[in-house]
Amino acid sequence: MAKDKTIKDACFGGNAVVGQSGGPTAAINATLAGVVRGCMAARQSGAVAKLYGMRNGIEGFMENRLVDLFEDFADEKRISLLEQTPAAYLGSCRKKLPDAAKDPAFYEKLMLLLKQHDIRYFFYIGGNDSMDTVAKLSAYAKKQQYDIRVIGIPKTVDNDLLGTDHTPGFGSAARYIATTLTEIVRDCAVYTVPAVTVVEIMGRDAGWLTASSAVGRIVTGEAPDYVYLPEVPFSMEKFFSDVRTELSRHPNVVIAVSEGIRNEAGEYICECTSAGTVDVFGHKQLSGTAKALEIAVREEFGCKVRSIELNLPQRCAAHLLSGQDMAESVRVGKAAVKAAVTGKTGVMMAFRRTGKKQYGCRIVAADVSKIANGIRYVPSDMIVPQGNNVTDGCCEYILPLIGKNPKIRFEKGLPVHISL
Amino acid sequence: MAKDKTIKDACFGGNAVVGQSGGPTAAINATLAGVVRGCMAARQSGAVAKLYGMRNGIEGFMENRLVDLFEDFADEKRISLLEQTPAAYLGSCRKKLPDAAKDPAFYEKLMLLLKQHDIRYFFYIGGNDSMDTVAKLSAYAKKQQYDIRVIGIPKTVDNDLLGTDHTPGFGSAARYIATTLTEIVRDCAVYTVPAVTVVEIMGRDAGWLTASSAVGRIVTGEAPDYVYLPEVPFSMEKFFSDVRTELSRHPNVVIAVSEGIRNEAGEYICECTSAGTVDVFGHKQLSGTAKALEIAVREEFGCKVRSIELNLPQRCAAHLLSGQDMAESVRVGKAAVKAAVTGKTGVMMAFRRTGKKQYGCRIVAADVSKIANGIRYVPSDMIVPQGNNVTDGCCEYILPLIGKNPKIRFEKGLPVHISL
Repeated sequence: MAKDKTIKDACFGGNAVVGQSGGPTAAINATLAGVVRGCMAARQSGAVAKLYGMRNGIEGFMENRLVDLFEDFADEKRISLLEQTPAAYLGSCRKKLPDAAKDPAFYEKLMLLLKQHDIRYFFYIGGNDSMDTVAKLSAYAKKQQYDIRVIGIPKTVDNDLLGTDHTPGFGSAARYIATTLTEIVRDCAVYTVPAVTVVEIMGRDAGWLTASSAVGRIVTGEAPDYVYLPEVPFSMEKFFSDVRTELSRHPNVVIAVSEGIRNEAGEYICECTSAGTVDVFGHKQLSGTAKALEIAVREEFGCKVRSIELNLPQRCAAHLLSGQDMAESVRVGKAAVKAAVTGKTGVMMAFRRTGKKQYGCRIVAADVSKIANGIRYVPSDMIVPQGNNVTDGCCEYILPLIGKNPKIRFEKGLPVHISL
Repeated sequence: MAKDKTIKDACFGGNAVVGQSGGPTAAINATLAGVVRGCMAARQSGAVAKLYGMRNGIEGFMENRLVDLFEDFADEKRISLLEQTPAAYLGSCRKKLPDAAKDPAFYEKLMLLLKQHDIRYFFYIGGNDSMDTVAKLSAYAKKQQYDIRVIGIPKTVDNDLLGTDHTPGFGSAARYIATTLTEIVRDCAVYTVPAVTVVEIMGRDAGWLTASSAVGRIVTGEAPDYVYLPEVPFSMEKFFSDVRTELSRHPNVVIAVSEGIRNEAGEYICECTSAGTVDVFGHKQLSGTAKALEIAVREEFGCKVRSIELNLPQRCAAHLLSGQDMAESVRVGKAAVKAAVTGKTGVMMAFRRTGKKQYGCRIVAADVSKIANGIRYVPSDMIVPQGNNVTDGCCEYILPLIGKNPKIRFEKGLPVHISL
């Protein structure tokens, strides 16, 4: 392997490392597959020598827990299976890097490990905290004049990263949510007895996932009657009025609600309602937001009420991977390698939507320091004026990301995954 | 249409009616499609003149709410879509017929309606209560010397009907549960912090659905660590001991539990633990079984705990229909029509498993009076001696029912359903 390191390209022929961080998604391993494929191509050209995987993100890297991914993925079939495997193949962590000024020892150890393994390409797949890691590490290395390309690759079901049209992982979660809601709406329609069903969807701050529950409206016509996002202050009186109106129209009311809805005072609904219950020992037990609304609706209307928390399957239901999301997740991984090899650092790969009528996206490298630690909310022009649903325009933004039905390999009816 | 009614075959050329009753499943509409197809064939031979669908089961029939299904399904494409539509196309009800001696007026009205529409074939798709309806109606009609063939067609995700190897609807629910558990197990494995995840699965009395969470074990190796069924009295001490053992082996413990687990005294765990909470008004609020165990584990171990209730999607996630279940659900609908035309009444169509190595099933007509109001439990030889999991033999019983991945039609990433 040629290691022709010049000042112009000090990284050429060095090693790469990749890690996964933050909450799992159904598509984060597709991005890992993209990085593996990208680095394999870069190995051909001599730019990359070895590709390490760090176990449990930066936490495992600091403990020198590395695996050789070229060896691990020598068999092409394994890379294909990786693309349809949910969660995080390398494991994950929730560590935010300290400030360099406050904990220099941490960074000294980190630099030592990078040098020890001659790591010149650092790929970090994750959300907000992970982009903070990318920003901090790239800044520190620059100061130390250590040549390394540090690239952030977005992933989060929440779709709340700044500087990108959307985030890989969101499309599959959105497909799961939209599909499940069409099925729940149908299930709830079979009886004639008045009933309210409240479905709680992930999203503490941004309502993108909850918004995706409405997408069926512009495809199959099946969608919740009301959709409440954290972007709109939640009023229990207004909510009761919505439910009353809808119950007067038909017996089966279905409501989608973000876990993160808050009242005017900014208090989470799950914390400030009667559903903040105490157990027999007097310990306060927080129930979910949907459960809180279930109890509130039962007390107000006395009708049948059910709450459903979609919970973890939202982020790990890889059997419902969006074909679009899966393809883009692989693509962004490859693009990250290309960006690194051509000299980019301190950037996050980002999507720019092209074309108005036909969906398309190009991938660019965006300054990560402008992305980390911000939140991209559902804009107010995607929410109806009454604040109790999203607009058709919002559904049209989400729809292409849900994409087509990809080919998933099943064995005896169950999806096939791979493990380290 | 020839109406050659002889004493030998008084029903020949009469009309048919079909209804759906009880909880929805992902496959109950496939059975309706089977009845429609079967009756269309019987129309060709002159045996059946018209096929009515009763809205909301027997409740709608008593209100004369009928639809003409030959007209509704004149387009073959609609029958195919019906097969992949979850819930109950005709709507459902939860009505149990009164005793004829206690409420003769009800039966007189029922007979009047049957005669008014010249109904000679009565197909009722449902679970236990529906089979009770079939038993009562067929007995009453016999007494009244009204020639009619009353046929029960099993459907229940619970798989707890007597006299049949399994019930249509179970295989798809089992596929959803087994798939979701493989994904949850994978999701939970990404972090290194000790954590317990408790997944609650439907089943008040019989543990078949919860048992199906274990099936991944013999296919992909991904399955919960422990599985608790209502068939085994639940001991909190034994449960804590299981969790302790498992946490000492690996950090991410996943537990599947039936909603219906009870202690030695027969009390539901969700009612007798500290999770039976009171709200600020002092009203008792019952949380789910998994939530109760979540609170108990947190109090005992102080570690990270999460509870997940799989909830409605278990019975309506038609995007994960089992190919085997779908095909058998259609087949049993057709078989019911054949049985009716050849003179059977007061029967439920039942499955008999054939062959030991290669899965197969034949469909027979079983005396419904021996089926209604009983429960088929998971037998003790399918549960491990420790009572905290199912045997491989149990998984092997369930596996063929999960079957293959059928062709489901999606539009823009979302499954396509049809409505009345």
